[in-house]
Parts: sequence; structure tokens; C-alpha cells
Amino acid sequence: MSSGRENYREDVAGRANVEDTPELLAYYDELEALEAGALWTVANKIEPWEPQSSSVPMIWRYRDLREHVLRSVELVTPEKAGRRVIYLNNPGRREFAAAVGWLYSGLQVMHPGEAASAHRHSASALRFIMEGAGAYTIVDGHKMTLNANDFVLTPNGTWHEHGVEESGSPCIWQDGLDIPLVNTLEANFYEVHPDLRQAVGFAVDDMTKTWGNPGLTPGGGAWDKGYSPLYKYEWERTYEALKRYAEATDGSPYDGVMMEYINPVTSGPVMQTIGASMQMLRPGEKTKAHRHTGSYLYQVAKGKGYSIIGGKRFDWQERDIFCVPSWAWHEHANLSDSDDACLFCFNDLPVMRSLGLYREEALADNGGHQPQD
Amino acid sequence: MSSGRENYREDVAGRANVEDTPELLAYYDELEALEAGALWTVANKIEPWEPQSSSVPMIWRYRDLREHVLRSVELVTPEKAGRRVIYLNNPGRREFAAAVGWLYSGLQVMHPGEAASAHRHSASALRFIMEGAGAYTIVDGHKMTLNANDFVLTPNGTWHEHGVEESGSPCIWQDGLDIPLVNTLEANFYEVHPDLRQAVGFAVDDMTKTWGNPGLTPGGGAWDKGYSPLYKYEWERTYEALKRYAEATDGSPYDGVMMEYINPVTSGPVMQTIGASMQMLRPGEKTKAHRHTGSYLYQVAKGKGYSIIGGKRFDWQERDIFCVPSWAWHEHANLSDSDDACLFCFNDLPVMRSLGLYREEALADNGGHQPQD
Amino acid sequence: MSSGRENYREDVAGRANVEDTPELLAYYDELEALEAGALWTVANKIEPWEPQSSSVPMIWRYRDLREHVLRSVELVTPEKAGRRVIYLNNPGRREFAAAVGWLYSGLQVMHPGEAASAHRHSASALRFIMEGAGAYTIVDGHKMTLNANDFVLTPNGTWHEHGVEESGSPCIWQDGLDIPLVNTLEANFYEVHPDLRQAVGFAVDDMTKTWGNPGLTPGGGAWDKGYSPLYKYEWERTYEALKRYAEATDGSPYDGVMMEYINPVTSGPVMQTIGASMQMLRPGEKTKAHRHTGSYLYQVAKGKGYSIIGGKRFDWQERDIFCVPSWAWHEHANLSDSDDACLFCFNDLPVMRSLGLYREEALADNGGHQPQD
Amino acid sequence: MSSGRENYREDVAGRANVEDTPELLAYYDELEALEAGALWTVANKIEPWEPQSSSVPMIWRYRDLREHVLRSVELVTPEKAGRRVIYLNNPGRREFAAAVGWLYSGLQVMHPGEAASAHRHSASALRFIMEGAGAYTIVDGHKMTLNANDFVLTPNGTWHEHGVEESGSPCIWQDGLDIPLVNTLEANFYEVHPDLRQAVGFAVDDMTKTWGNPGLTPGGGAWDKGYSPLYKYEWERTYEALKRYAEATDGSPYDGVMMEYINPVTSGPVMQTIGASMQMLRPGEKTKAHRHTGSYLYQVAKGKGYSIIGGKRFDWQERDIFCVPSWAWHEHANLSDSDDACLFCFNDLPVMRSLGLYREEALADNGGHQPQD
Repeated sequence: MSSGRENYREDVAGRANVEDTPELLAYYDELEALEAGALWTVANKIEPWEPQSSSVPMIWRYRDLREHVLRSVELVTPEKAGRRVIYLNNPGRREFAAAVGWLYSGLQVMHPGEAASAHRHSASALRFIMEGAGAYTIVDGHKMTLNANDFVLTPNGTWHEHGVEESGSPCIWQDGLDIPLVNTLEANFYEVHPDLRQAVGFAVDDMTKTWGNPGLTPGGGAWDKGYSPLYKYEWERTYEALKRYAEATDGSPYDGVMMEYINPVTSGPVMQTIGASMQMLRPGEKTKAHRHTGSYLYQVAKGKGYSIIGGKRFDWQERDIFCVPSWAWHEHANLSDSDDACLFCFNDLPVMRSLGLYREEALADNGGHQPQD
Repeated sequence: MSSGRENYREDVAGRANVEDTPELLAYYDELEALEAGALWTVANKIEPWEPQSSSVPMIWRYRDLREHVLRSVELVTPEKAGRRVIYLNNPGRREFAAAVGWLYSGLQVMHPGEAASAHRHSASALRFIMEGAGAYTIVDGHKMTLNANDFVLTPNGTWHEHGVEESGSPCIWQDGLDIPLVNTLEANFYEVHPDLRQAVGFAVDDMTKTWGNPGLTPGGGAWDKGYSPLYKYEWERTYEALKRYAEATDGSPYDGVMMEYINPVTSGPVMQTIGASMQMLRPGEKTKAHRHTGSYLYQVAKGKGYSIIGGKRFDWQERDIFCVPSWAWHEHANLSDSDDACLFCFNDLPVMRSLGLYREEALADNGGHQPQD
Repeated sequence: MSSGRENYREDVAGRANVEDTPELLAYYDELEALEAGALWTVANKIEPWEPQSSSVPMIWRYRDLREHVLRSVELVTPEKAGRRVIYLNNPGRREFAAAVGWLYSGLQVMHPGEAASAHRHSASALRFIMEGAGAYTIVDGHKMTLNANDFVLTPNGTWHEHGVEESGSPCIWQDGLDIPLVNTLEANFYEVHPDLRQAVGFAVDDMTKTWGNPGLTPGGGAWDKGYSPLYKYEWERTYEALKRYAEATDGSPYDGVMMEYINPVTSGPVMQTIGASMQMLRPGEKTKAHRHTGSYLYQVAKGKGYSIIGGKRFDWQERDIFCVPSWAWHEHANLSDSDDACLFCFNDLPVMRSLGLYREEALADNGGHQPQD
Repeated sequence: MSSGRENYREDVAGRANVEDTPELLAYYDELEALEAGALWTVANKIEPWEPQSSSVPMIWRYRDLREHVLRSVELVTPEKAGRRVIYLNNPGRREFAAAVGWLYSGLQVMHPGEAASAHRHSASALRFIMEGAGAYTIVDGHKMTLNANDFVLTPNGTWHEHGVEESGSPCIWQDGLDIPLVNTLEANFYEVHPDLRQAVGFAVDDMTKTWGNPGLTPGGGAWDKGYSPLYKYEWERTYEALKRYAEATDGSPYDGVMMEYINPVTSGPVMQTIGASMQMLRPGEKTKAHRHTGSYLYQVAKGKGYSIIGGKRFDWQERDIFCVPSWAWHEHANLSDSDDACLFCFNDLPVMRSLGLYREEALADNGGHQPQD
């Protein structure tokens, strides 16, 4: 009998398994008229046995994208475009402009002397510098100078703007935001700065100089915002930290030598909705597979190798971007026997953790390695 | 020129405003082939000036639903149905089986002697008892007896099951869950209890007797789970608390005498994703309008009155259920001059707060009252 | 050789064991002239193997003290005395006016119509009502009515004053303070209220009505002080809580059915330096012995029995006060087979816990019971 | 009339002011027999208007102490002495072996090839390296190499031992402990390690390499102890941090460019009872006077200058140690116009803060500078 109605039945104790009958179908029609429905027709659909991600594992290769990003300079001005950005579309998430799960990402380009106007929004943002010299970001009056592999925050609710000094060179960076998440949670606000530009009210890079010191905090310093006062994490110090930590740890079987960027005041995530990490795969290192809830977007900061995600191999090199959807198995390999490889990652782990939804699992079979398609 | 592509332009400084040209359209096609897009074509869409809820204000009247709920007893067994529940569909959220925003709600009915099998899931759940005698819930081996207007938790990850004693009468309660949220965050897991039924391992109502005492905590008691150990909040004590508090407060201009159900260990929300409150509107009280992020579902626990939500009046009486979508203006009125009215509410405020997305605003115009449609 | 100098030697590996020699004694003299000394002469003294309390176990019987307390009414006025209080002196702590460890306690008496002037200090205070009707306390403008066995806070830094209504009867209560601790930590400040009397700015008993409700918190209520907003813990509710909790617990082997008074916002101690609890010994209950760091002062709120403290038995009845010094073995017994006995206690456990100094140990020998002297 | 009894009277409203009479003196005798007393005779003594420190401002000059410290090597062995330490006696605190308030400090010396046996205690300890090469400390199996101005923790309850490598040179360091505090709180325990020596179970300096990285935390790293996992704070990095921070701050008017050593997991103090800081006085800098509760012990890590403490000037140079008692006015000056001066400090601020007893005040008069005696 074809009812035209959905009815997700499973023949398992404890699951809904009600056959459609004419009487029931009539009953369903009555419920629908009251803006109601019978749970048992949809229960098995809305209570899956495990997460079903609508994102697909995916890689965006920089050699493909770079020319297109640079070409946008000729095609649109920052003034007209707002921001001159090419964003990444996960094939399963196009309707949300998401690269994976509820995370947005794009590649932004600016030429020397250009600057974008200041604005703020409920979405949280970060950038990871890919190439060029002279880029800067201003966050709530704090100006930061930027170099390759620097990681910068523009947290929710902060006024922010970007530019490249006249003396610089064309710059490209990756933007990461939780715009899709904040939209779907129906909580996004947007404002253009009344002056379109912020005044710089502090010494350049003051927040990094104040809050970016190991085991030390400014005397009398207080900070109770939901995000890190350390707006900029410099690559040089981060890479040095990874090398130091590598001397003291065996590393994670799943992630090699991994460090999480943190809010130094709480040692929690850098922002309430977005976490970030940098991990080093030692020469020749091949990790084992695990999976966890939460969506991940990686950028290759250094080196070359591959990741196997959901059973499919993705080879990567510096500046490539790839994603791991929620609950997808993944493992990484460094293809060099002499150089380390470093992966930058941002993710929605803080959301998973704050809401009690984080879960992880190691792959037990096959020595911890996925069979590949 | 009709391109077939979306392009959300706004003629406002700081917003995207790029006209389609043949060259750009060709460029967009190239980007699409790379699973990428030009941000300026969608920026104004994905960065709205303020939240746009896809839920509509809505009331479900108990006099309409009750007979249908009771009728389901004849139509399906708990065994076949899993749970015998009529769920509420917000017209704007049917695809997610959501009553408002990312919150699910349904009305469940059980007859004396019936019981549903035990299961657990990543979604968090609550119930609010509407009518009948002899209902009980078992959560991780703790059995609770239930009466009208009692509020019960079955937190994420806990084994739980419900039933009605042989000596009882037909019972109806409201279920509230964050199933849509946990699904869209791709983090839902589901398990049927291996024995289909739990053993009761503690004195009946032990958690309420242990954790539900004002200003006192069990000696040596420790609790570090993400949810309240006080699984059941009894109506009698809750109503007494509201009356006591009413003697000490002027009340909120927007909500009258309102108390939040809390996790007594943290004084935070009862669960990490769902908050709940009970508010008393004093005889004749009319509140002023405000709005905030987060989605709300109310049940009238006592009395009669109306709420104006998004400019539309909804009259309610005991057991009616209505919703306030995110960022919708709302105000409440008690239509009785002699009796108080009480509104139970559950919501996703903990999500808004944990993620730094809570914002509220009072209506400044018209004496704080909405013009009605 | 008699040196006149202290030199604490122990013949144990890892402990100091240096014999005095003329050369060393001369060296010690030189050090002394530089305001210095040789650690090995005092190391074993200042690093004992376990705590050595200078307090002794002690009981103050109400039948002995009551008449003296009442007599003070004839002898001094509240105006002259500041407060008309008889304080308790532990024989080992007389120089600090301490009842045990660093805790002060006294019995205060007031007649109807009397009131003491308002003041504040860095010391934290509490009172536990012993007898009489019509007593009240005002804390930062919040007035509280008091009855027997009510427990009231006047936290550090709050303006406070006490009195008895004209319509009342002579009232006696126990004061508990950390004055000795705050003095020895060199942090005590004292101020007399500029008007000598506070204005009452809130509904009577408003803090209890607002914050003293089980599992409920005032909507929008915020509290971030270091002490509980629930200034008064009423006996009736406390006793009811004990009886409820007794239905759900087997109790502690050392303390019977014990509940801790808490700050409902943090579920931590009522004040940062003083904790308090109420415990019920069920009819005929005899607990086992344990010991822990921290000093305890008990008042018998109900019933009769005995405690064995440091190997010595102390029989008690209602209103008697006794102490347990730090690291002293102690166990309790209810001498009635039909009635419960209740012990109120305040202590410096929050100090031990905040500073990482709490340690406890159960008595392993003799079935957990101390041999008595 | 001479009574022989203490009676602290003040002729101020709200203070005790009861004249001795024969009747009262007899009454006091009766109370004394009951181990009780009349509060009004001692109230003004035990409730001072403001803290009265029994410590005196004091300096210990290294040029005076160094030779005596070195001479102890000839006089006692580490085995006999336990630890070969010259401790500092504040003239007002000799009975407690305290350098200031409840803080102990000593200078320890070890020759190459020497090692002290491992032990642990409830007291918290730190060391600050003064001179020599090859010193090391082992804490719970983690070995740390030490150089001048390095700051090392041996927290309460951890097994620890010290030594100097055969290849090193004679080493002197300052020990800082809260022994007097833990003793007076009657909570000190002491144990000698069963093997007298610990096995080293980790890479040398692993804790610093793991936890001492700015804005980064080890992936998956968890730490919930009450003290910092960063056991060693290296001078080179600390001094670099001060210089960086100096570029971003105007400094404190009272302390110049000051940073607090922190537990990187909580950003709170390094241990629960002892805080520490390093401050830089820029060339020619003279700070203003303030005072606060809590006791401070300084060591001059670099440069020369003076401090005015309680109205008295103390000139200092590298390695000198001086103290600031609780609530004493103090201000600092760098006497060089070309070089910075650095002051290491440890204190009991965490105790003041945990117990709600911290208070501070700036000197308002005389341009913020103390008149000198």
C-alpha cells in the first residue's frame, strides 16, 4: 500500500514498527491538520543509531584555487565585495555555504594598500595566513601584524577589519567562521562600524605581548570574556612549542604531536564555538584511525602527506585544505622521511564539549587502519 | 540580466553589492566546478542584520489534541510504537519534527499497567506531567513517582523508561527533547537497553530526597555530570517556592515572578542543552514585551490568559502549549483578577549562553507593548 | 653538653641529626646575629610527622553556662559591652580567645527591646539560635527573623546588627567566628556603621524566600560574592531535609545522616572560611571513628548522646557545645533508642580545602572504635 | 584599680568600654573556671581597626650571608642535616622560623655530586636559583635542570629531592615554603621516601616542554591538581616575557612591569598557598606606595635600587632578600638610569584571595610617596 506518507519502520525491539492502515492514515491526516504527527512514523528517522553526517570528506587543493583567488582582485574591489573571498562549498552542505558541518571557510586576498571596512557579528571568526607580507588585522582597536602560518582571532562581537600595508605584497589567508552554525541557531547579528574604520588604541601586537608568555600573566590583568585575549598566535613560537613538546611526549596514536591553541586565561578553547590546533607528524609518521563527533577543517601548514578519511585517501601538500566530517574515521601520514609535516585545524569541538555531545572511538580492527575504497 | 544564480546585493557601505556581469558569471561557474563560490554573492544572505527565525508563533490547544492523544491508545501499542506519542509540528520546522527552533515536543499517553522499553540517546529529554495518576520514570536505576505538573529529567546518555502502575489511571505528559538540535549537530546516538527493562537500584525518589533540599547538600555527596542530579522537581514544592519568592520580589517586568529550574550542584541549567523555568503571573498581571535569542516552548500549568507573540495574540488556558521563536517579541497577561497563572517553559537558552550567543532587548516603544496585527 | 639552644634531633634517615659542637654553637651565634639560623636545628620541630593540635577536646555544658550568660544582662549593657557575649576558651588556645583551632565562639544574650549597633569586619560570622523568641539579625539591609536552631550568616564585610523585638522573650544564641584566624593572617579590619543602625531595605526574610528554594533559582538572579546569599537556614526546613534524606541514604559510617549547609549558587561552603553542617544520628546509632584536618565545633541541636574524642568520652545533651581538634579521632553515639539526635557543627573545612590541606583517615583497628582512656 | 586581668577599653560608640568592678572581676573568675570569658574585656583586642603585623620590614644582604652559607658545607653533611640550609628569621617571628608572616625561607647550598634524600610534606615549596651550575630537582619523577634565576615548584604532597651533578659547581638557591602556615593550621604531614631516592620516569624537563608554551596546551592533556604542572619557570623566557610585556604596557604605578607566575591550566597561582611574581623596574623607575594584606618576600634577581617599606629605606642589590609585612606601605626604586632591575617575589596572596581577605589601598598623600623615618 502506497501512502505517500513517510513511515520509518524497523523490526527491532524498542524501535517503532507500525504498519500503515487506512485507519491510521486517516488519523495521520487529522493530526496534520492540528500541526501534529504520530511520533512512531518518524521516530526511527529522527533517532538514528549513530550520527549521519551530510558532509562528505573533501580536499581543496591550493594549486587549483590560488589562481582563481588572485584573479578576484581584478574582478571586484573590496568596497564592492565587502570582502574579496572565495568560499569553500562542501558538496553536501551547499545550501549553508559550509565547508564541513556548520563551519564556513574561504580564501581572502588583499593587495598592498587595500583595506576592508570594519564590522562585527555574532559569528566567531579566525584567519590563518597563507602567503604574502604586510597583512594586518585590527580587533577592537588592537592592531596585529601577520605572517605566514600566524593564527588570528576575530571573536564574536568584536569590531574587526583587515588590510595590507602599502609596503607589503599580495596576501592570501584562510578565513574560518561559524556563520552557518550561528545562522541555524537563529542568533546572528551584523553591524557595520559607524566610522567604517577603527582607531588603533594600543601598541601594535600588544595582546600577544601581554598574554602570550608561557606560565606568566600580566600583573593585575583581568579578562572575563568568552574568548581568548591572545588574539594572535605566532607561527614561530607555535612551531618552537611543537618541537619542544615533541621532546617530552610520545605523541597521540591518532594525531602525532598535537597542541591545542587555547585561551590562556581558562586553558579552554580560543572561542566558545571554535577550537583550533596545530599538530606535527614526525618524519615517516603514520597515525591510527579514530573518529569523533564534531566537524574538522584542516590546512597543511608544512610538508606533504596524506589522510585517509571515511576510507578514502586524500594526498596533500602545503596550503591544501581538507575536511573530516563528524564521526568519520580518519588517520594521517607524513610522506617525508626527513621533514616533519604540520596540520592546522579548526573545528566545532567546543560546541560538542559545551553541550555534552563529544564522543570518540578508536578503530579496533585491522591494526587501527581503515580499509581503503 | 537573469543569471539563474543567487546574488544578494545591498546598497549599504560595508555590504556586498557586486553586479553580475558575463565575466563574473563565467568566473562563478569555474569556482563552482572547484566546489567553491564567491562570497560576495551570498554574504548578505548568510550575514543577516538580525536573526530570522524559520519558526512561527503557534499555539496547540489541549482541547483539540487531547482526544487524539487518547485515541492513539486504541490504535497502537507501546511495543509497536516504541513510544505512543503525538508530536507537535511547527509549520516552519516540519522537516525537523520541531515544535520551535531545534526543540522537539510531543504528548505521550500510557494506560495503567503499560510500560515502554528502556533506551538511551545523546539527545536530552524532559517530561512535564499533564494528567493521570501512577506514572513513573526510571533514570539510570532511580525510580520516580509522578504527579501533575511535576517536571522530570531524562538527561543525555542516561537509560530511561516510563510506565504507569496497574493501580493508576491513564496518564498524559509532555515530552521535550533536543533531538532536532543533536541531529543537526550530527551527534546523536541511540541504544536500546540490552534487557529492555532496568532494575531499580535505589529508594524510590531518592534523588529528589537527596538533592532537593534548600541550602543543603548531602554530606560527602559528589556529582560532576553535566546535568542535574535532581531528576524530579515536584510541583507542590515549586508552587510553594513561587509563592514565597513572590513575597520577596517585585518580579520581572517581562516575566512576572519567574524561577529557573537548576542543577543544584552548579546552579546552572538542568541539562547542558535545555533550560526550564516556571513563572507566575499574579492576578491581573500584564507584562511588557522583550525579545531574546533562543527558542521557547510553554505549557500552561495553571490559570488562563494570553500572550502576544510577534504581534499576534494567543489566548491560553491550562494545558495549552505555545511557542516563542528566537528574537520574537513576546509579552504575557493573566486574565484572572483573583487567581495566579503559571507557565512552565523549556528552551535552548543553555545553548545560547554556552556558545556566547545570548542577546536580549526590551521593547522601547508604546509603553513596552506590541502593536497587534 | 648543655647549649641553651634548641636542637631537635631524630635518628631517622632523611631527618636532621646534627650534634652540637662548640664550633657549631659559635656558628649558630653568628647566624643569629644576621637574623638567620641553621635549619637542621629546628627542621624536625617545624616538620612534624603529623599535625599536633594545641587544642584539647572539650565540652561546655549549657546547664553550667546558661545562668552566667543570663546574669550578664544585669552586669553590662549592650551599649557598653558592644556585644553582651560570654566566649569559650579552649585551654590550649586561651591566648587567641579560640574555642578550638582558629575558631572563636561565644554565647550572646539579648532582652526584648535591646539591639546592638551595626558594624562590619573582615572576620566571617554565624549564629545558631539556642532559645527565646523575637530575635532578628540585619545583614546589609536584609532583616531576618530567628527561631531556635535557625542558622544565620553575617559574612565577612557585611554590615550587621542584632536585636530582639519588644514583643519577644530573652534570647540566647551561639556566635561563631573566624576572628582568631583572620587575626593571625593579619587581615582583620573593623568598622562601626556611621549611623550605628542600618535601614531595612527589603522585605523581611527576602533572601531566604529568594534563594532558599530546592532546585529553583530566581529568574535573572545573579550573585557572585564569596558567600551564600541564603543568609538564613531555617530549622524546620533543615530538619525536614534530614528526614527526607534519611529515607534515601544509608548514611555515613562516621557521621550518620549528614547534610552540609551550602551557598546555593556554588554548592560550596556558606562562607569562604567557615563551613557548617547538621547531622542526624538515628535512634541508637553509633558511628565509627575517623579523623581529619580542620577544627570542629558542635552544638547539640536535639537529643542526647555522647562523642568519643581523642579517646575520651563526652556525654552531651541539647545545647551543649563541644569541639574536635584537628586530626583527633572522633565518633558519635545517640543514647536514645526512640528519638533521633541532631548535631549542628561549624568548622574551618573550607580553609583546609581551599588551601589543599584536607586529609582524612578512618580508624582501622578495633572495629573502627577508639579505645577509651 | 589594678585587676591583673586584661581589659581593652575604647571610648568609641560600638566598641567595648566596660570598667572593671569588684562584682565583674568576681564574675570573670567564675567564667574562667568554666573555660569561658567575657567578650567585652577582649573584644577591642581581637577586633583591631586594621591588621597589626608582628613581622618587621627587614633585609638580608647576600654579601653578609653568602660566606656563612658556604661555610655550612664544611660543618655538616646533607645526610646529617637533612637539608643544608640557613633559614631567615624575622625578628618578630622567630618562634615560627618565619621570614615574614607565615612564610619560611632559607638558603640552601650543595656541592657537585651531593644529593639530598627524597621526601614529601603538606607544606608547599619553591626554589629560586641564586648561583652555580648543574643543580637539579626531581618532583614526582620529573627531573629538572636549574640555572640562575630559574623558579621551581615542589608542591604540597609531591615527592621531591635536589642535587648537583658531578660536573657542576657549588650551587646556592633560596627555598620558600609555607611551613609556618601549615603548622599553625595544624595540617602538616611529613614522609621520607621509602627508597630515599626517586626514579626519574620522564624526559628531563618534560613538564616545562609540555606545559610551558604560550597559548598552547598539549592535545588531550588533562591536569586537575591544585598546583601548576609547569614545575619550572626558566629565567630566559621569563625575562624575555617581561621585555615583551614592557612594550605593551605602561606598567603598574606600584610595581612597574609586573607578571605573575601562574598555573597555566587555571591561570591562577602556581600553588594553592603561595603565589609568585617577577617584576621589572625600568631604568630610573620609582613607583608609588600602596599596601595590601598578605606577606611578601622579595629576592633581587637583577640590578640595584631601594625599597621604602613602612617608612624605612632598604637599599638592595642582586641576590639580596627583603620582606614586606601585611598591610605595610611599600614602594620601589631602580637606582640605575641605564639598566632595568628585576625583583622576584613570593607571597601568600593565594591564601588572602581564597579566603576573601585580600584588600589593597594606594597611598593618597604626598604624591603617593611615604615620608621616611
